[in-house]
Amino acid sequence: MAKRFSVSEYSDGVLSGNRVMLSRAITLVESTLPSDQALAQQVLDAVLPHAGRSVRVGITGVPGVGKSTFIEALGLHLVAAHHHRLAVLAVDPSSQRSGGSILGDKTRMNLLAAHPHAFIRPSPAGRSLGGVTRATREAMLLCEAAGHDVIFVETVGVGQSETAVHGMVDFFLLLMLAGAGDELQGIKKGIMEMADAVTITKADGDNELASRRARREYQNALHLFPLAPSAWAPLVTTSSALTGAGVPEVWEVVQRYVQQTQASGYFQQRRQEQNLHWLHETIRETLETRFYARPEVQAQLASVQQRVLEGRQSAFGAATELLGL
Amino acid sequence: MAKRFSVSEYSDGVLSGNRVMLSRAITLVESTLPSDQALAQQVLDAVLPHAGRSVRVGITGVPGVGKSTFIEALGLHLVAAHHHRLAVLAVDPSSQRSGGSILGDKTRMNLLAAHPHAFIRPSPAGRSLGGVTRATREAMLLCEAAGHDVIFVETVGVGQSETAVHGMVDFFLLLMLAGAGDELQGIKKGIMEMADAVTITKADGDNELASRRARREYQNALHLFPLAPSAWAPLVTTSSALTGAGVPEVWEVVQRYVQQTQASGYFQQRRQEQNLHWLHETIRETLETRFYARPEVQAQLASVQQRVLEGRQSAFGAATELLGL
Repeated sequence: MAKRFSVSEYSDGVLSGNRVMLSRAITLVESTLPSDQALAQQVLDAVLPHAGRSVRVGITGVPGVGKSTFIEALGLHLVAAHHHRLAVLAVDPSSQRSGGSILGDKTRMNLLAAHPHAFIRPSPAGRSLGGVTRATREAMLLCEAAGHDVIFVETVGVGQSETAVHGMVDFFLLLMLAGAGDELQGIKKGIMEMADAVTITKADGDNELASRRARREYQNALHLFPLAPSAWAPLVTTSSALTGAGVPEVWEVVQRYVQQTQASGYFQQRRQEQNLHWLHETIRETLETRFYARPEVQAQLASVQQRVLEGRQSAFGAATELLGL
Repeated sequence: MAKRFSVSEYSDGVLSGNRVMLSRAITLVESTLPSDQALAQQVLDAVLPHAGRSVRVGITGVPGVGKSTFIEALGLHLVAAHHHRLAVLAVDPSSQRSGGSILGDKTRMNLLAAHPHAFIRPSPAGRSLGGVTRATREAMLLCEAAGHDVIFVETVGVGQSETAVHGMVDFFLLLMLAGAGDELQGIKKGIMEMADAVTITKADGDNELASRRARREYQNALHLFPLAPSAWAPLVTTSSALTGAGVPEVWEVVQRYVQQTQASGYFQQRRQEQNLHWLHETIRETLETRFYARPEVQAQLASVQQRVLEGRQSAFGAATELLGL
């Protein structure tokens, strides 16, 4: 096990913007050891008054859409032209990367990773979606406390992780390819409806015309859906990480969204709702984990599930039986 | 409290197709009394081997879309032309109707209600969504055991109840109006994506042209979404409960879906998944209900929530505190 520090060593280090201590604090919140979790909560409570002052952007898109190159292009624009301090986190429950190594992301985004105002951290490895989501959400708070005022949370657009990311960010950006057809892109049902903006990537060269056509098609499709509670009408743009065309415009869209929803009060309201939701989700997950870990339940679960699957017992009757153990 | 019968009186009555005993058994599963719930589970377990042999169709659409008249027209077609035995149930957590009275539905669908092969039962009143969903799901099993081979579960397309209904049916039908615009129709995000078919209602008279146009628009929009796990491509039709045009075609779509998914095995697989899901949902709900009902938790919950809302405590820390009580 890596060395552990005191609460104030962690929190002072994070609050001073010390990247090494930020990394160590994130390693701490990622740990599943009960002693680490208790320490992590004290660190989080200490830095919490300094967290929250950022724009949190979720970015999703299936492999092949050019997510890393797009994030690097947009990220470099933010740190260079807008003087933002950016943190890039990830929610990827299938990640095989080790918790400590950021080699995977560094080689993917080496220009951005080398920038002093950018901090890149891969998804914690070997955890359930709930575990990854919690760790990433807490890493986000630590990055904010360390002075990062823009947070990207990236995820791969093929599973339930989008819903989890959507629940921890202010703005949700979906990357799509022109012409591939949604079926081929593997975008899960419902993800398009969560998007506050869609950008058609790789809109350059031979692909430009098709990208503009795709933009119109998606824009029309999004019009068919009702306004979100934010009263924000999702926008579709085209962009090219290669030429840089359309990349600043994506950030302009995010800024416009933030202005509009901060003015309406929706921005703050949504953050509060996300906090409350997170409280109750954590309670739910813990109750379920405790229940299914009980030896009596583990001994009976398989046979009860089998009876339900075969239609020999009602689901409610089976649940009652397990709950009565 | 109404009279209670023995398990075999309930189950024999239901299995013989006795409508009065079917109604009484549904009242039993709707009851929140622990003694009734225990009896209800015995009745359900007794009839369970005879349940499941039906096509379960969820039908949703906002008030004004003509849901009752459409259901009556389609229902009469099913009992008259196809000699089906139909049960119409509802999931409507906001329902103010009393549990025993079916007057509301009877006046809405008096032709169908009068038919000997149709059984109409309103949503149980005064319950949470979870409670209504459970009661409706178990009422569905009782109706199947009583010989009803088509079950409609209707709900109003404005809330979370659609997801609950989608989780208990084989086929999900969305009713839409031409020209009203989704915003006006109040269809919640995500509902269109759950639909296996959409029918544009009131496609008659002056409204016919607009309905055909709406049909094309929605069909195009649905093409933008990926195939569901069923590999079924959702269809959009037009229909008129007034003229009857397009009503039989909706049933043809359902039949085609059933044939295709039974041949692929998806139909049976989905039912099994729904059963397992239901088992774990019931466990989750019960664990949460028990937890939040604890006096220590009730005493602390408001102040803990307030700290989380104001950003003074992390959600995870607050959850840990409540879970440690």
